Amino acid sequence: MSNGQLQMLQTPTPEEGFDLAIRLAQKGVEVTQPSEEIRQMLRPVYSRNVDSLIATSQVIAIHFQTIAAANNYWRAWTPHYG
Amino acid sequence: MSNGQLQMLQTPTPEEGFDLAIRLAQKGVEVTQPSEEIRQMLRPVYSRNVDSLIATSQVIAIHFQTIAAANNYWRAWTPHYG
Amino acid sequence: MSNGQLQMLQTPTPEEGFDLAIRLAQKGVEVTQPSEEIRQMLRPVYSRNVDSLIATSQVIAIHFQTIAAANNYWRAWTPHYG
Amino acid sequence: MSNGQLQMLQTPTPEEGFDLAIRLAQKGVEVTQPSEEIRQMLRPVYSRNVDSLIATSQVIAIHFQTIAAANNYWRAWTPHYG
Amino acid sequence: MSNGQLQMLQTPTPEEGFDLAIRLAQKGVEVTQPSEEIRQMLRPVYSRNVDSLIATSQVIAIHFQTIAAANNYWRAWTPHYG
Amino acid sequence: MSNGQLQMLQTPTPEEGFDLAIRLAQKGVEVTQPSEEIRQMLRPVYSRNVDSLIATSQVIAIHFQTIAAANNYWRAWTPHYG
Repeated sequence: MSNGQLQMLQTPTPEEGFDLAIRLAQKGVEVTQPSEEIRQMLRPVYSRNVDSLIATSQVIAIHFQTIAAANNYWRAWTPHYG
Repeated sequence: MSNGQLQMLQTPTPEEGFDLAIRLAQKGVEVTQPSEEIRQMLRPVYSRNVDSLIATSQVIAIHFQTIAAANNYWRAWTPHYG
Repeated sequence: MSNGQLQMLQTPTPEEGFDLAIRLAQKGVEVTQPSEEIRQMLRPVYSRNVDSLIATSQVIAIHFQTIAAANNYWRAWTPHYG
Repeated sequence: MSNGQLQMLQTPTPEEGFDLAIRLAQKGVEVTQPSEEIRQMLRPVYSRNVDSLIATSQVIAIHFQTIAAANNYWRAWTPHYG
Repeated sequence: MSNGQLQMLQTPTPEEGFDLAIRLAQKGVEVTQPSEEIRQMLRPVYSRNVDSLIATSQVIAIHFQTIAAANNYWRAWTPHYG
Repeated sequence: MSNGQLQMLQTPTPEEGFDLAIRLAQKGVEVTQPSEEIRQMLRPVYSRNVDSLIATSQVIAIHFQTIAAANNYWRAWTPHYG
Protein backbone atom coordinates (compact mmCIF):
# COMPACT_ATOMS: atom_id res chain seq x y z
CA MET A 1 0.00 0.00 0.00
CA SER A 2 2.60 2.53 -1.13
CA ASN A 3 1.18 6.09 -1.46
CA GLY A 4 -1.88 4.81 0.35
CA GLN A 5 -2.75 2.69 -2.69
CA LEU A 6 -3.82 -0.86 -1.91
CA GLN A 7 -1.72 -3.07 -4.19
CA MET A 8 -2.62 -6.63 -3.22
CA LEU A 9 -4.05 -8.66 -0.35
CA GLN A 10 -1.32 -11.29 -0.35
CA THR A 11 1.32 -10.94 2.36
CA PRO A 12 4.30 -13.17 3.20
CA THR A 13 3.24 -13.72 6.84
CA PRO A 14 0.15 -13.48 9.09
CA GLU A 15 1.84 -10.62 10.98
CA GLU A 16 2.06 -8.56 7.80
CA GLY A 17 -1.52 -9.57 7.01
CA PHE A 18 -2.58 -8.15 10.39
CA ASP A 19 -0.70 -4.93 9.62
CA LEU A 20 -2.57 -4.66 6.33
CA ALA A 21 -5.87 -5.18 8.17
CA ILE A 22 -4.99 -2.26 10.45
CA ARG A 23 -4.23 -0.03 7.47
CA LEU A 24 -7.51 -0.97 5.74
CA ALA A 25 -9.43 -0.11 8.93
CA GLN A 26 -7.69 3.30 9.00
CA LYS A 27 -8.31 3.79 5.28
CA GLY A 28 -12.03 3.27 5.96
CA VAL A 29 -11.92 6.12 8.49
CA GLU A 30 -9.93 8.46 6.23
CA VAL A 31 -12.62 8.15 3.57
CA THR A 32 -15.14 9.89 5.81
CA GLN A 33 -12.70 12.22 7.59
CA PRO A 34 -9.93 13.03 5.09
CA SER A 35 -8.38 15.74 7.28
CA GLU A 36 -5.23 14.42 8.97
CA GLU A 37 -5.45 17.40 11.36
CA ILE A 38 -8.94 16.56 12.61
CA ARG A 39 -8.10 12.84 12.91
CA GLN A 40 -5.06 13.71 15.07
CA MET A 41 -7.33 15.87 17.20
CA LEU A 42 -9.79 13.02 17.74
CA ARG A 43 -7.10 10.43 18.52
CA PRO A 44 -6.39 11.23 22.22
CA VAL A 45 -10.11 11.05 22.91
CA TYR A 46 -10.88 7.69 21.36
CA SER A 47 -7.62 5.99 22.32
CA ARG A 48 -8.75 6.26 25.96
CA ASN A 49 -12.34 5.27 25.28
CA VAL A 50 -12.77 1.55 25.81
CA ASP A 51 -15.75 1.14 23.48
CA SER A 52 -13.95 2.92 20.62
CA LEU A 53 -10.90 0.71 21.16
CA ILE A 54 -12.99 -2.47 21.00
CA ALA A 55 -14.92 -1.21 17.96
CA THR A 56 -11.64 -0.48 16.16
CA SER A 57 -10.38 -3.94 17.06
CA GLN A 58 -13.54 -5.35 15.50
CA VAL A 59 -13.05 -3.57 12.18
CA ILE A 60 -9.49 -4.90 12.10
CA ALA A 61 -10.84 -8.40 12.79
CA ILE A 62 -13.22 -8.20 9.82
CA HIS A 63 -10.46 -7.06 7.47
CA PHE A 64 -8.10 -9.71 8.85
CA GLN A 65 -10.74 -12.32 8.00
CA THR A 66 -10.70 -11.16 4.37
CA ILE A 67 -6.91 -11.00 4.18
CA ALA A 68 -6.44 -14.41 5.81
CA ALA A 69 -8.80 -15.96 3.24
CA ALA A 70 -6.91 -14.14 0.45
CA ASN A 71 -3.72 -15.77 1.68
CA ASN A 72 -5.28 -19.21 2.02
CA TYR A 73 -4.60 -18.78 5.76
CA TRP A 74 -0.83 -18.90 5.14
CA ARG A 75 -1.08 -22.70 5.19
CA ALA A 76 2.24 -24.45 4.77
CA TRP A 77 0.48 -27.44 3.32
CA THR A 78 -2.76 -27.74 1.42
CA PRO A 79 -5.43 -30.02 2.87
CA HIS A 80 -7.01 -32.36 0.38
CA TYR A 81 -10.73 -31.66 -0.13
CA GLY A 82 -11.82 -34.77 -1.92
CA MET B 1 -21.67 2.06 -10.88
CA SER B 2 -22.61 4.66 -13.49
CA ASN B 3 -25.82 6.60 -12.64
CA GLY B 4 -25.65 5.03 -9.19
CA GLN B 5 -26.40 1.64 -10.72
CA LEU B 6 -24.26 -1.23 -9.49
CA GLN B 7 -22.98 -2.99 -12.61
CA MET B 8 -20.64 -5.70 -11.37
CA LEU B 9 -18.53 -6.63 -8.35
CA GLN B 10 -15.38 -7.37 -10.34
CA THR B 11 -12.70 -4.68 -10.32
CA PRO B 12 -9.23 -4.65 -11.89
CA THR B 13 -7.42 -3.91 -8.59
CA PRO B 14 -7.99 -4.15 -4.81
CA GLU B 15 -7.87 -0.34 -4.63
CA GLU B 16 -10.83 -0.07 -6.97
CA GLY B 17 -12.52 -2.85 -5.01
CA PHE B 18 -12.14 -0.76 -1.86
CA ASP B 19 -13.63 2.24 -3.67
CA LEU B 20 -16.60 0.12 -4.64
CA ALA B 21 -17.01 -0.99 -1.00
CA ILE B 22 -17.16 2.69 0.01
CA ARG B 23 -19.83 3.42 -2.59
CA LEU B 24 -21.92 0.42 -1.48
CA ALA B 25 -21.74 1.62 2.14
CA GLN B 26 -22.96 5.06 1.01
CA LYS B 27 -25.66 3.48 -1.15
CA GLY B 28 -26.92 1.68 1.96
CA VAL B 29 -27.30 5.05 3.70
CA GLU B 30 -28.98 6.76 0.73
CA VAL B 31 -31.68 4.09 0.76
CA THR B 32 -32.91 5.26 4.16
CA GLN B 33 -32.13 8.96 3.71
CA PRO B 34 -32.55 9.75 -0.01
CA SER B 35 -32.26 13.52 0.47
CA GLU B 36 -28.80 14.72 -0.60
CA GLU B 37 -29.50 17.96 1.29
CA ILE B 38 -30.11 16.25 4.65
CA ARG B 39 -27.10 13.93 4.19
CA GLN B 40 -24.87 16.96 3.56
CA MET B 41 -26.29 18.52 6.71
CA LEU B 42 -25.46 15.42 8.79
CA ARG B 43 -21.93 15.03 7.38
CA PRO B 44 -20.04 17.65 9.49
CA VAL B 45 -21.51 16.08 12.62
CA TYR B 46 -20.63 12.46 12.01
CA SER B 47 -17.29 13.11 10.35
CA ARG B 48 -16.04 14.43 13.72
CA ASN B 49 -17.70 11.71 15.78
CA VAL B 50 -15.25 8.91 16.41
CA ASP B 51 -17.85 6.18 16.87
CA SER B 52 -19.61 7.09 13.62
CA LEU B 53 -16.27 7.05 11.80
CA ILE B 54 -15.44 3.58 13.11
CA ALA B 55 -18.95 2.29 12.37
CA THR B 56 -18.67 3.54 8.79
CA SER B 57 -15.28 1.88 8.45
CA GLN B 58 -16.92 -1.37 9.60
CA VAL B 59 -19.64 -1.26 6.94
CA ILE B 60 -16.93 -0.67 4.32
CA ALA B 61 -15.02 -3.67 5.72
CA ILE B 62 -18.06 -5.94 5.33
CA HIS B 63 -18.63 -4.84 1.73
CA PHE B 64 -14.91 -5.17 0.98
CA GLN B 65 -15.11 -8.77 2.20
CA THR B 66 -17.84 -9.49 -0.35
CA ILE B 67 -16.04 -7.71 -3.19
CA ALA B 68 -12.69 -9.37 -2.42
CA ALA B 69 -14.37 -12.79 -2.60
CA ALA B 70 -16.08 -11.78 -5.86
CA ASN B 71 -12.64 -11.00 -7.29
CA ASN B 72 -11.09 -14.22 -6.00
CA TYR B 73 -8.94 -11.89 -3.86
CA TRP B 74 -7.20 -10.52 -6.98
CA ARG B 75 -4.87 -13.52 -6.84
CA ALA B 76 -2.21 -13.48 -9.56
CA TRP B 77 -2.05 -17.23 -9.40
CA THR B 78 -4.61 -19.82 -8.43
CA PRO B 79 -3.71 -22.09 -5.52
CA HIS B 80 -4.35 -25.76 -6.14
CA TYR B 81 -7.05 -27.13 -3.82
CA GLY B 82 -6.60 -30.83 -4.34
CA MET C 1 -40.51 -11.15 -3.06
CA SER C 2 -44.15 -10.78 -4.17
CA ASN C 3 -46.63 -10.41 -1.26
CA GLY C 4 -43.65 -10.02 1.03
CA GLN C 5 -42.72 -13.67 0.41
CA LEU C 6 -39.05 -14.32 -0.26
CA GLN C 7 -38.99 -16.50 -3.40
CA MET C 8 -35.32 -16.93 -4.23
CA LEU C 9 -31.94 -15.32 -3.64
CA GLN C 10 -30.90 -15.33 -7.29
CA THR C 11 -31.18 -12.01 -9.13
CA PRO C 12 -30.23 -11.09 -12.70
CA THR C 13 -27.92 -8.21 -11.66
CA PRO C 14 -25.97 -6.97 -8.61
CA GLU C 15 -28.24 -3.91 -8.49
CA GLU C 16 -31.29 -6.13 -8.03
CA GLY C 17 -29.32 -8.15 -5.49
CA PHE C 18 -28.72 -4.96 -3.53
CA ASP C 19 -32.44 -4.15 -3.69
CA LEU C 20 -33.20 -7.58 -2.29
CA ALA C 21 -30.69 -6.99 0.55
CA ILE C 22 -32.57 -3.79 1.42
CA ARG C 23 -35.89 -5.63 1.51
CA LEU C 24 -34.46 -8.39 3.73
CA ALA C 25 -33.12 -5.77 6.15
CA GLN C 26 -36.61 -4.20 6.29
CA LYS C 27 -38.23 -7.63 6.67
CA GLY C 28 -36.02 -8.18 9.73
CA VAL C 29 -37.41 -5.00 11.27
CA GLU C 30 -41.04 -5.79 10.40
CA VAL C 31 -40.75 -9.06 12.31
CA THR C 32 -40.29 -7.20 15.58
CA GLN C 33 -42.49 -4.22 14.75
CA PRO C 34 -45.29 -5.46 12.46
CA SER C 35 -47.29 -2.23 12.66
CA GLU C 36 -46.80 -0.21 9.45
CA GLU C 37 -48.17 2.80 11.32
CA ILE C 38 -45.56 2.72 14.10
CA ARG C 39 -42.74 2.10 11.60
CA GLN C 40 -43.84 5.17 9.60
CA MET C 41 -43.86 7.14 12.85
CA LEU C 42 -40.29 6.08 13.67
CA ARG C 43 -38.94 6.77 10.18
CA PRO C 44 -38.46 10.58 10.34
CA VAL C 45 -36.50 10.12 13.57
CA TYR C 46 -34.04 7.48 12.46
CA SER C 47 -33.59 8.77 8.91
CA ARG C 48 -31.92 11.85 10.42
CA ASN C 49 -29.93 9.95 13.00
CA VAL C 50 -26.47 9.20 11.66
CA ASP C 51 -25.86 6.12 13.80
CA SER C 52 -29.17 4.55 12.78
CA LEU C 53 -28.37 5.22 9.13
CA ILE C 54 -24.97 3.54 9.41
CA ALA C 55 -26.43 0.61 11.36
CA THR C 56 -29.06 0.09 8.67
CA SER C 57 -26.39 0.22 5.99
CA GLN C 58 -24.54 -2.50 7.92
CA VAL C 59 -27.52 -4.86 7.98
CA ILE C 60 -27.91 -4.34 4.22
CA ALA C 61 -24.19 -5.13 3.80
CA ILE C 62 -24.57 -8.44 5.65
CA HIS C 63 -27.57 -9.48 3.55
CA PHE C 64 -25.80 -8.35 0.37
CA GLN C 65 -22.91 -10.65 1.31
CA THR C 66 -25.31 -13.60 1.45
CA ILE C 67 -27.07 -12.67 -1.79
CA ALA C 68 -23.80 -12.07 -3.67
CA ALA C 69 -22.59 -15.54 -2.65
CA ALA C 70 -25.95 -17.01 -3.71
CA ASN C 71 -25.42 -15.47 -7.16
CA ASN C 72 -21.83 -16.67 -7.40
CA TYR C 73 -21.01 -12.92 -7.39
CA TRP C 74 -22.68 -12.46 -10.80
CA ARG C 75 -19.45 -13.61 -12.42
CA ALA C 76 -19.55 -13.60 -16.22
CA TRP C 77 -16.97 -16.32 -16.33
CA THR C 78 -16.12 -19.07 -13.87
CA PRO C 79 -12.55 -19.06 -12.52
CA HIS C 80 -10.88 -22.45 -12.51
CA TYR C 81 -10.02 -23.61 -8.98
CA GLY C 82 -7.66 -26.45 -9.65
CA MET D 1 -37.72 -26.51 15.71
CA SER D 2 -40.52 -28.36 17.49
CA ASN D 3 -40.49 -27.91 21.31
CA GLY D 4 -37.89 -25.21 20.78
CA GLN D 5 -35.41 -27.88 19.64
CA LEU D 6 -33.42 -27.00 16.55
CA GLN D 7 -33.74 -30.04 14.26
CA MET D 8 -31.94 -29.07 11.05
CA LEU D 9 -30.87 -26.02 9.08
CA GLN D 10 -32.32 -27.20 5.78
CA THR D 11 -35.62 -25.61 4.73
CA PRO D 12 -37.70 -26.06 1.55
CA THR D 13 -37.74 -22.34 0.70
CA PRO D 14 -35.82 -19.10 1.46
CA GLU D 15 -38.92 -17.76 3.21
CA GLU D 16 -38.86 -20.67 5.67
CA GLY D 17 -35.11 -20.14 6.03
CA PHE D 18 -35.76 -16.55 7.03
CA ASP D 19 -38.33 -17.72 9.57
CA LEU D 20 -35.76 -20.08 11.04
CA ALA D 21 -33.24 -17.20 11.26
CA ILE D 22 -35.81 -15.21 13.26
CA ARG D 23 -36.34 -18.13 15.66
CA LEU D 24 -32.59 -18.58 16.16
CA ALA D 25 -32.21 -14.87 16.95
CA GLN D 26 -35.00 -15.20 19.56
CA LYS D 27 -33.46 -18.40 20.92
CA GLY D 28 -30.23 -16.44 21.50
CA VAL D 29 -32.16 -13.94 23.61
CA GLU D 30 -34.05 -16.61 25.58
CA VAL D 31 -30.75 -18.12 26.66
CA THR D 32 -29.88 -15.02 28.64
CA GLN D 33 -33.42 -14.11 29.69
CA PRO D 34 -35.37 -17.38 30.04
CA SER D 35 -38.40 -15.73 31.65
CA GLU D 36 -41.20 -15.40 29.11
CA GLU D 37 -42.82 -12.89 31.46
CA ILE D 38 -39.85 -10.50 31.54
CA ARG D 39 -39.34 -10.80 27.77
CA GLN D 40 -43.01 -9.83 27.20
CA MET D 41 -42.47 -6.88 29.53
CA LEU D 42 -39.45 -5.69 27.54
CA ARG D 43 -41.11 -6.12 24.14
CA PRO D 44 -43.21 -2.89 23.96
CA VAL D 45 -40.08 -0.90 24.82
CA TYR D 46 -37.71 -2.30 22.24
CA SER D 47 -40.27 -2.71 19.46
CA ARG D 48 -40.52 1.10 19.37
CA ASN D 49 -36.80 1.73 19.72
CA VAL D 50 -35.24 2.13 16.32
CA ASP D 51 -31.76 1.03 17.32
CA SER D 52 -33.08 -2.17 18.95
CA LEU D 53 -35.10 -2.93 15.84
CA ILE D 54 -32.07 -2.52 13.58
CA ALA D 55 -29.87 -4.56 15.95
CA THR D 56 -32.43 -7.38 15.93
CA SER D 57 -32.57 -7.25 12.14
CA GLN D 58 -28.77 -7.62 12.13
CA VAL D 59 -28.81 -10.77 14.27
CA ILE D 60 -31.43 -12.23 11.92
CA ALA D 61 -29.18 -11.32 8.96
CA ILE D 62 -26.23 -13.21 10.47
CA HIS D 63 -28.32 -16.32 11.11
CA PHE D 64 -29.87 -16.08 7.64
CA GLN D 65 -26.33 -16.08 6.21
CA THR D 66 -25.65 -19.38 7.96
CA ILE D 67 -28.95 -20.93 6.95
CA ALA D 68 -28.65 -19.80 3.32
CA ALA D 69 -25.21 -21.45 3.11
CA ALA D 70 -26.63 -24.59 4.74
CA ASN D 71 -29.23 -24.74 1.96
CA ASN D 72 -26.71 -24.08 -0.78
CA TYR D 73 -28.67 -20.84 -1.31
CA TRP D 74 -31.72 -22.79 -2.51
CA ARG D 75 -30.15 -22.87 -5.96
CA ALA D 76 -32.27 -24.62 -8.61
CA TRP D 77 -29.15 -25.54 -10.51
CA THR D 78 -25.60 -26.14 -9.40
CA PRO D 79 -22.92 -23.89 -10.92
CA HIS D 80 -19.88 -25.73 -12.21
CA TYR D 81 -16.69 -24.69 -10.36
CA GLY D 82 -14.03 -26.06 -12.67
CA MET E 1 -16.05 -28.57 26.63
CA SER E 2 -15.41 -30.47 29.86
CA ASN E 3 -13.55 -28.40 32.50
CA GLY E 4 -14.17 -25.38 30.30
CA GLN E 5 -11.77 -26.82 27.72
CA LEU E 6 -12.98 -26.62 24.14
CA GLN E 7 -12.49 -30.11 22.70
CA MET E 8 -13.93 -30.00 19.19
CA LEU E 9 -16.42 -28.04 17.09
CA GLN E 10 -18.26 -31.08 15.76
CA THR E 11 -21.61 -31.85 17.42
CA PRO E 12 -24.18 -34.56 16.65
CA THR E 13 -27.05 -32.10 16.12
CA PRO E 14 -27.69 -28.41 15.35
CA GLU E 15 -29.23 -28.04 18.82
CA GLU E 16 -25.98 -29.12 20.46
CA GLY E 17 -24.12 -26.85 18.03
CA PHE E 18 -26.23 -23.93 19.27
CA ASP E 19 -25.43 -24.88 22.87
CA LEU E 20 -21.73 -24.85 22.03
CA ALA E 21 -22.12 -21.39 20.44
CA ILE E 22 -23.66 -20.14 23.70
CA ARG E 23 -20.75 -21.56 25.72
CA LEU E 24 -18.18 -19.95 23.39
CA ALA E 25 -19.91 -16.58 23.74
CA GLN E 26 -19.75 -16.95 27.55
CA LYS E 27 -16.13 -18.07 27.36
CA GLY E 28 -15.33 -14.83 25.49
CA VAL E 29 -16.80 -12.86 28.40
CA GLU E 30 -15.01 -14.90 31.07
CA VAL E 31 -11.69 -14.05 29.45
CA THR E 32 -12.10 -10.38 30.29
CA GLN E 33 -14.00 -10.83 33.56
CA PRO E 34 -12.74 -14.08 35.13
CA SER E 35 -14.51 -13.48 38.45
CA GLU E 36 -17.63 -15.65 38.68
CA GLU E 37 -18.78 -13.41 41.53
CA ILE E 38 -18.69 -10.19 39.50
CA ARG E 39 -20.32 -11.86 36.50
CA GLN E 40 -23.20 -13.06 38.72
CA MET E 41 -23.52 -9.51 40.01
CA LEU E 42 -23.79 -8.11 36.49
CA ARG E 43 -26.27 -10.72 35.28
CA PRO E 44 -29.57 -9.30 36.69
CA VAL E 45 -28.70 -5.95 35.11
CA TYR E 46 -27.97 -7.09 31.57
CA SER E 47 -30.60 -9.82 31.43
CA ARG E 48 -33.24 -7.08 31.61
CA ASN E 49 -31.47 -4.72 29.23
CA VAL E 50 -32.78 -5.22 25.73
CA ASP E 51 -29.67 -4.01 23.93
CA SER E 52 -27.42 -6.34 25.96
CA LEU E 53 -29.73 -9.25 25.21
CA ILE E 54 -29.63 -8.55 21.46
CA ALA E 55 -25.85 -8.04 21.53
CA THR E 56 -25.41 -11.39 23.30
CA SER E 57 -27.67 -13.05 20.74
CA GLN E 58 -25.41 -11.61 18.02
CA VAL E 59 -22.23 -13.08 19.51
CA ILE E 60 -23.98 -16.45 19.69
CA ALA E 61 -25.01 -16.04 16.02
CA ILE E 62 -21.39 -15.46 14.96
CA HIS E 63 -20.15 -18.53 16.86
CA PHE E 64 -23.06 -20.60 15.52
CA GLN E 65 -21.96 -19.62 12.00
CA THR E 66 -18.51 -21.06 12.69
CA ILE E 67 -19.83 -24.23 14.31
CA ALA E 68 -22.40 -24.82 11.55
CA ALA E 69 -19.63 -24.62 8.94
CA ALA E 70 -17.48 -26.95 11.04
CA ASN E 71 -20.30 -29.50 10.94
CA ASN E 72 -20.91 -29.07 7.22
CA TYR E 73 -24.31 -27.71 8.31
CA TRP E 74 -25.33 -31.14 9.62
CA ARG E 75 -26.34 -32.05 6.07
CA ALA E 76 -27.81 -35.54 5.73
CA TRP E 77 -26.60 -35.69 2.16
CA THR E 78 -23.71 -34.02 0.41
CA PRO E 79 -24.56 -31.76 -2.55
CA HIS E 80 -22.48 -32.34 -5.63
CA TYR E 81 -20.36 -29.28 -6.53
CA GLY E 82 -19.30 -30.15 -10.07
CA MET F 1 2.84 -15.33 18.81
CA SER F 2 6.20 -15.08 20.56
CA ASN F 3 7.32 -11.44 21.13
CA GLY F 4 3.83 -10.41 20.11
CA GLN F 5 4.58 -11.54 16.54
CA LEU F 6 1.83 -13.56 14.91
CA GLN F 7 3.53 -16.64 13.47
CA MET F 8 0.74 -18.78 12.07
CA LEU F 9 -2.99 -19.37 12.39
CA GLN F 10 -2.76 -23.14 12.72
CA THR F 11 -3.12 -24.52 16.24
CA PRO F 12 -3.19 -28.13 17.49
CA THR F 13 -6.57 -27.80 19.21
CA PRO F 14 -9.71 -25.60 19.17
CA GLU F 15 -8.84 -24.48 22.72
CA GLU F 16 -5.52 -23.07 21.54
CA GLY F 17 -7.32 -21.56 18.55
CA PHE F 18 -9.62 -19.74 20.97
CA ASP F 19 -6.60 -18.49 22.90
CA LEU F 20 -5.13 -17.13 19.69
CA ALA F 21 -8.43 -15.38 18.90
CA ILE F 22 -8.24 -13.66 22.30
CA ARG F 23 -4.69 -12.51 21.63
CA LEU F 24 -5.63 -11.14 18.19
CA ALA F 25 -8.52 -9.21 19.73
CA GLN F 26 -6.10 -7.71 22.27
CA LYS F 27 -3.55 -7.00 19.54
CA GLY F 28 -6.23 -4.98 17.72
CA VAL F 29 -6.68 -2.84 20.83
CA GLU F 30 -2.94 -2.37 21.41
CA VAL F 31 -2.61 -0.92 17.91
CA THR F 32 -4.72 2.08 18.87
CA GLN F 33 -3.64 2.31 22.51
CA PRO F 34 -0.02 1.11 22.65
CA SER F 35 0.51 2.24 26.26
CA GLU F 36 0.36 -0.77 28.60
CA GLU F 37 -0.09 1.70 31.47
CA ILE F 38 -3.22 3.33 30.04
CA ARG F 39 -4.70 -0.06 29.06
CA GLN F 40 -4.22 -1.30 32.65
CA MET F 41 -5.94 1.85 33.85
CA LEU F 42 -8.95 1.24 31.59
CA ARG F 43 -9.27 -2.45 32.47
CA PRO F 44 -11.16 -2.24 35.81
CA VAL F 45 -13.71 0.03 34.17
CA TYR F 46 -14.56 -2.09 31.14
CA SER F 47 -14.30 -5.47 32.85
CA ARG F 48 -17.37 -4.49 34.91
CA ASN F 49 -19.24 -2.94 32.01
CA VAL F 50 -21.56 -5.51 30.46
CA ASP F 51 -21.66 -3.95 27.01
CA SER F 52 -17.86 -3.79 26.79
CA LEU F 53 -17.64 -7.43 27.86
CA ILE F 54 -20.10 -8.52 25.17
CA ALA F 55 -18.37 -6.37 22.54
CA THR F 56 -15.02 -7.94 23.42
CA SER F 57 -16.57 -11.40 23.20
CA GLN F 58 -17.80 -10.48 19.72
CA VAL F 59 -14.34 -9.48 18.47
CA ILE F 60 -13.01 -12.79 19.78
CA ALA F 61 -15.84 -14.59 17.95
CA ILE F 62 -14.89 -12.96 14.63
CA HIS F 63 -11.22 -13.89 15.04
CA PHE F 64 -12.17 -17.42 16.12
CA GLN F 65 -14.16 -17.75 12.89
CA THR F 66 -11.03 -16.94 10.90
CA ILE F 67 -8.81 -19.26 12.92
CA ALA F 68 -11.29 -22.14 12.81
CA ALA F 69 -11.41 -21.87 9.00
CA ALA F 70 -7.60 -21.73 8.90
CA ASN F 71 -7.55 -25.02 10.80
CA ASN F 72 -10.18 -26.65 8.64
CA TYR F 73 -12.28 -26.67 11.85
CA TRP F 74 -9.88 -29.19 13.44
CA ARG F 75 -11.77 -31.96 11.66
CA ALA F 76 -10.49 -35.42 12.41
CA TRP F 77 -11.73 -36.62 9.07
CA THR F 78 -12.23 -34.78 5.81
CA PRO F 79 -15.76 -34.81 4.38
CA HIS F 80 -15.97 -35.64 0.71
CA TYR F 81 -17.33 -32.74 -1.37
CA GLY F 82 -18.22 -34.48 -4.60
